[in-house]
Amino acid sequence: MFDLHERLVADTVHIIDWPLCSILLMNDSTYPWVVLVPRRHGVVEIHELDKDDRETLMEEIAEASQRLQNTTKAHKINVAALGNVVPQLHVHVIGRFATDAAWPRPVWGVVPAQPFAPAALMAEVARMAQVFAIPASPTPAS
Amino acid sequence: MFDLHERLVADTVHIIDWPLCSILLMNDSTYPWVVLVPRRHGVVEIHELDKDDRETLMEEIAEASQRLQNTTKAHKINVAALGNVVPQLHVHVIGRFATDAAWPRPVWGVVPAQPFAPAALMAEVARMAQVFAIPASPTPAS
Repeated sequence: MFDLHERLVADTVHIIDWPLCSILLMNDSTYPWVVLVPRRHGVVEIHELDKDDRETLMEEIAEASQRLQNTTKAHKINVAALGNVVPQLHVHVIGRFATDAAWPRPVWGVVPAQPFAPAALMAEVARMAQVFAIPASPTPAS
Repeated sequence: MFDLHERLVADTVHIIDWPLCSILLMNDSTYPWVVLVPRRHGVVEIHELDKDDRETLMEEIAEASQRLQNTTKAHKINVAALGNVVPQLHVHVIGRFATDAAWPRPVWGVVPAQPFAPAALMAEVARMAQVFAIPASPTPAS
């Protein structure tokens, strides 16, 4: 029953499936940017997930944030579930740098997306597939 | 040891403390907008919280989102932990409408904040204190 929204299909590349979320690479080379999409049909808001799924979502957000920060050395991680354009619940996890194009503003609408060239996109997906591979720790250290 | 960042002190008004987070009203009448701040010293990123705190944070985000949507009938709830300007971990929970000033863009930087007039601010804080009062359900229905 779960289908990825067509806008996410157009803007991202699939990296790997975690227990709840599909991890997608945003096709924008301006920022290290992944999108977590819980594979649950028809869910728009975080509070529409059941409690177990919310707990898993939080752990997957934290795990993805930590891995992205470890691999990119980002100064800050931005986490956001907005969904004004794409209602299907999805969570942005973005590595930010004090030197990036939008800093300190949020990334949306500041500079146009810079899609990866085809070879660079393949390389980035391969790299991110290693970063987000299962196992590694199931959750960040507490 | 926990002190609220001076920028949050300047931009918000305290509504109530939940078990983990202080619930703050953003002093911007443009949107229904609260900020959840975990009362943990020195935490910048979600993944720096321990696992129990992350679980509580998720439940408080979901509970706040549901209450804000119920009371405002917002079309969409935006949830975001950005922190590029204020590093202290804080989570925005914002009710959005297809008719609001920034729709469908994220709210940041689109239109200047419209602080409430003093009497309106007092009324809004009183209203939100009822919306976010404990008890009610400890967590959203699963």
